[in-house]
Amino acid sequence: MLTDHDRRKQISVRGIALVENVGNIKKSFNRHLHFSIIKDRNVATPRDYYFALANTVRDHLVSRWIRTQQHYYEKDPKRVYYLSLEFYMGRTLSNTMMNLGIQATVDEALYQLGLDIEELQEIEEDAGLGNGGLGRLAACFLDSMATLGIPAYGYGLRYEYGIFKQLIRDGWQVEEPDDWLRFGNPWEKARPEYMLPVNFFGRVEKDGEGKSKWVDTQVVFAMPYDTPVPGYRNNVVNTLRLWSAKAENHFHLKFFNDGDYVQAVMDRNTSENITRVLYPNDNMFVGKELRLKQQYFLVAASLQDIIRRFKSSKYGCRDVVRVDFSTFPDKVAIQLNDTHPSIGIPELMRLLIDVEDLSWEEAWKICVDTYAYTNHTLLPEALERWPVSLMQSLLPRHLEIIYQINHLFMESVSKRFPGDFDRMRRMSIVEEADSHGEKRINMAHLCIVASHAINGVAALHSELLKSHTFHDFYEFYPEKFQNKTNGITPRRWLLLSNPSLADIICEKIGEDWITNLDELQKLKEFADSAPFLESIRRVKQENKLRVAQYLEEEYNVTINPSSLFDIHVKRIHEYKRQLLNILFVIALYNRIKENPDLKMVPRTYLYGGKAAPGYHMAKHLE
Amino acid sequence: MLTDHDRRKQISVRGIALVENVGNIKKSFNRHLHFSIIKDRNVATPRDYYFALANTVRDHLVSRWIRTQQHYYEKDPKRVYYLSLEFYMGRTLSNTMMNLGIQATVDEALYQLGLDIEELQEIEEDAGLGNGGLGRLAACFLDSMATLGIPAYGYGLRYEYGIFKQLIRDGWQVEEPDDWLRFGNPWEKARPEYMLPVNFFGRVEKDGEGKSKWVDTQVVFAMPYDTPVPGYRNNVVNTLRLWSAKAENHFHLKFFNDGDYVQAVMDRNTSENITRVLYPNDNMFVGKELRLKQQYFLVAASLQDIIRRFKSSKYGCRDVVRVDFSTFPDKVAIQLNDTHPSIGIPELMRLLIDVEDLSWEEAWKICVDTYAYTNHTLLPEALERWPVSLMQSLLPRHLEIIYQINHLFMESVSKRFPGDFDRMRRMSIVEEADSHGEKRINMAHLCIVASHAINGVAALHSELLKSHTFHDFYEFYPEKFQNKTNGITPRRWLLLSNPSLADIICEKIGEDWITNLDELQKLKEFADSAPFLESIRRVKQENKLRVAQYLEEEYNVTINPSSLFDIHVKRIHEYKRQLLNILFVIALYNRIKENPDLKMVPRTYLYGGKAAPGYHMAKHLE
Repeated sequence: MLTDHDRRKQISVRGIALVENVGNIKKSFNRHLHFSIIKDRNVATPRDYYFALANTVRDHLVSRWIRTQQHYYEKDPKRVYYLSLEFYMGRTLSNTMMNLGIQATVDEALYQLGLDIEELQEIEEDAGLGNGGLGRLAACFLDSMATLGIPAYGYGLRYEYGIFKQLIRDGWQVEEPDDWLRFGNPWEKARPEYMLPVNFFGRVEKDGEGKSKWVDTQVVFAMPYDTPVPGYRNNVVNTLRLWSAKAENHFHLKFFNDGDYVQAVMDRNTSENITRVLYPNDNMFVGKELRLKQQYFLVAASLQDIIRRFKSSKYGCRDVVRVDFSTFPDKVAIQLNDTHPSIGIPELMRLLIDVEDLSWEEAWKICVDTYAYTNHTLLPEALERWPVSLMQSLLPRHLEIIYQINHLFMESVSKRFPGDFDRMRRMSIVEEADSHGEKRINMAHLCIVASHAINGVAALHSELLKSHTFHDFYEFYPEKFQNKTNGITPRRWLLLSNPSLADIICEKIGEDWITNLDELQKLKEFADSAPFLESIRRVKQENKLRVAQYLEEEYNVTINPSSLFDIHVKRIHEYKRQLLNILFVIALYNRIKENPDLKMVPRTYLYGGKAAPGYHMAKHLE
Repeated sequence: MLTDHDRRKQISVRGIALVENVGNIKKSFNRHLHFSIIKDRNVATPRDYYFALANTVRDHLVSRWIRTQQHYYEKDPKRVYYLSLEFYMGRTLSNTMMNLGIQATVDEALYQLGLDIEELQEIEEDAGLGNGGLGRLAACFLDSMATLGIPAYGYGLRYEYGIFKQLIRDGWQVEEPDDWLRFGNPWEKARPEYMLPVNFFGRVEKDGEGKSKWVDTQVVFAMPYDTPVPGYRNNVVNTLRLWSAKAENHFHLKFFNDGDYVQAVMDRNTSENITRVLYPNDNMFVGKELRLKQQYFLVAASLQDIIRRFKSSKYGCRDVVRVDFSTFPDKVAIQLNDTHPSIGIPELMRLLIDVEDLSWEEAWKICVDTYAYTNHTLLPEALERWPVSLMQSLLPRHLEIIYQINHLFMESVSKRFPGDFDRMRRMSIVEEADSHGEKRINMAHLCIVASHAINGVAALHSELLKSHTFHDFYEFYPEKFQNKTNGITPRRWLLLSNPSLADIICEKIGEDWITNLDELQKLKEFADSAPFLESIRRVKQENKLRVAQYLEEEYNVTINPSSLFDIHVKRIHEYKRQLLNILFVIALYNRIKENPDLKMVPRTYLYGGKAAPGYHMAKHLE
């Protein structure tokens, strides 16, 4: 249906390929195929071509990446650290070509080499390190911050297995492991020189002056892998740093037979299990020890790295030039993407007090001024409430600090609302024991108390936080509450995802909307322009044809491409109301059955989504 | 003690660096530092420089590697496949530079860049994929075969952890894991397109015609990693292919909660444990299931690969052009490095009979004509004798085939020596049940029966095999027995290890000895030349000074550099007789104590070696 030229146009958004640049790309591609992939054209596979292409494109990032980081060290600006258990990055190749503005040139080069760039792009594995909106928000923010030139760093975990792949067998979901690193990841660079230790378990010792020391811990190392995050055509390349668990290189064991030694080597995997797999739950708290380990592993490694960078003088340098932590919040902002990284609050307190020797009061001020917290949900089952017994065993010093934070907070509540014990109970970070005698730490409460800003992700959501979920806290700290409506980056979600629509928009109002979405207002002027509306209709029709073609090829399903498409693609979850939607479809169907002459636009309903493996109700909904 | 110039000379064996070449190396080094390592000189660590250097040197291998392999496919020569559970390769960088003849040029380039090449060389991790002589022999053979231009392939396992590192604590050996791949290995290239399935367990099904099928197996995948093996200055680059275990990418499981799913992902490591660690035993059979898995994993993957190459028309091609297996032994020679890969014998029989549909007789002839077996030891505790029960469970079809091989072999023994039941018992591949009722498969007997050539590794050793260990077999198959005295490659062990000595030899008799050791005979002419003897003495003295200096720096031990050095470095093993040697030292010591006026050359005794973690007697010897 689409001609070869159309296909190429779909991916070559604007820009004219210069002959000289095309030649350089071809040369670089061939060099990588030969020297990096060690293949010639006779025996190279499509995957080899993909890697040669990825390396070629990556080369264009390198100087900008190095220079951006050097610039940050020179200018010493305030840095934004975005801590998230999920970064749902998806694919990198096309996005990088687009942001660097080399898409048309690369397209032409591969065309001249007789290769199909779309086929190669399909070989790239998804970096599926997220479940849904929360993880994709993190990815979009990274793109936007780089495009705005903000000195920002993403910190997350390098899960060896991302979100599972879904198969449908006999109408039921079957999960498959997402072994996305199997063939190697050309977009990451390991940085073993910044590997850091993370402690677990152990106990707290007090010295004569009451100073605490966390001792007898088990150590796991965090190996950083850096991924470049290019801004849109502004030569900025920020960094996403993902941590991978590495076992300690000592056994501290005596072996009395070879089997024990061999087993000990294999047991190293147990500690490396921390970053093995993304928990497949969206909007659902699953209180597993391994998950708490993941959370602490992320923040412990990231905070050490952040403090090293705060102290050091220049890019890559470890010399300490700054020892006064009072300026820490002027140089460091840490955004918590939901409560998942909230154990970073007691960790920062611990580092400032136990390691950097600050007083509680100094440390607390720094902590509050540094942290900000994004709440993602009102659903009670999604709120993180860690059992005290688990935290006592895994992170004893952190539990102590949380108790102290809560103690001081309760004092201040009591001072403002004397005798209002019910309010104190409702606001306490440490919840009263449940029917099993288990106390829990309410991580959202901890975040609100220890942050200077708390936001919801939509106007209504933020209002409900104030009026319902965190009403007591809103009364106590009204100044902390704000709203930041979630956005998506128009680079990926319009320019890259719908190149034809982007093209006709650019024809009318230029390209400024790509970095400033308000510019789209200018389209109002053409709201009544018949040719413009016609071109939009044509693009839409072409895209629908592509969907129909895809469904035909991949699933052997034929749909009517001129019908209205009603598509519902998201996690399968009761609150997402797939059930309600399908009831509506049934109602419509019945209406037509009852009255075959009913005038209606033909409609095609499409559903897609994954359910958490253990979410039975959701699996039934599928 | 050594001047800067001496140090440089130590590693720049002959050859003059051309200005132009030096410039290219520097350019290439800087390009790799920037584009491959993503660092600039301000922030690069010594390890970054090492990787930039390794990449630079590797670039010089690539064209030769590709062309060598193309050449083999064009000429379709007989290929040698060296199967070994161990390849003790050690470091690659200097050896590669030397074999390519670019050492002096690289040395000069790094000197001009202000970098210390010896420091960088020290950063390279040892590829310690062996225990001792058996593994190093395999590595030396690869070097020699490449230097002789023989179309040879090494096949082994890519152990994630090689031979353990030894620490001495309180006078006792303590083992540490050898995490040699931690920082990445610049000398290997993964070849996922040649990944192959390997089956374990399951059962044997017979069809109506009595044809066997191995079914209900558990599958693990073998991912190949290729390492280049350059010949000495002859533009040949052969391949060492090491297999790494990868879990299958399907679960075949239903999950009812998230914990089970997460656990299932982590359990993938269990199947990947197959290539996790080298068994640390030298000359000692440890009959563990995991070890048998390793052995079968190696041969199953390698034989599939060998047969694919036999059938295919050209480099990287999978089209079958050859279907007649009668020419297999004309194109394929498989050398078994000890019995460790001997399960390859029933595996080849299985492939030829069950998969390729050959008759038993055809398959057997091919098998014997293809295989040759190297015996490494007379020690009874080192001989592999696998319990039938283990083989029945892990490799049921192979056990069937071994029984059939033995049945036919026993028939032929009975025909030659009618009624000699004791001889039959002694020669049987399947041993009679022991006191626990356990029968065992004698893998050495299997190898002798199924190979056309059997060799020991020293003249005396080969004689003892004939006269004692395998005397019955020698009587039966005298034509199969031969000797191949183990050698070491003079490139690594003289030219690289003792560059100063190599230099003075070259001054006298040129460089031909480097590829033809008989040339060293020409030195006889200078046996009485005082200046020559003096120069040898000077080199030896310098080297001893280096040893003394090293011991001083690393261990804070001072020795007399003008004493006689008596050095004993090898595995700690009773049969190596470290104990006997130390008794001799004590005897000498007592002799001096008794007679202080005794005239004796001052001597320094040095011992080094690792003991298997479970070898108690050896650990006591340390």
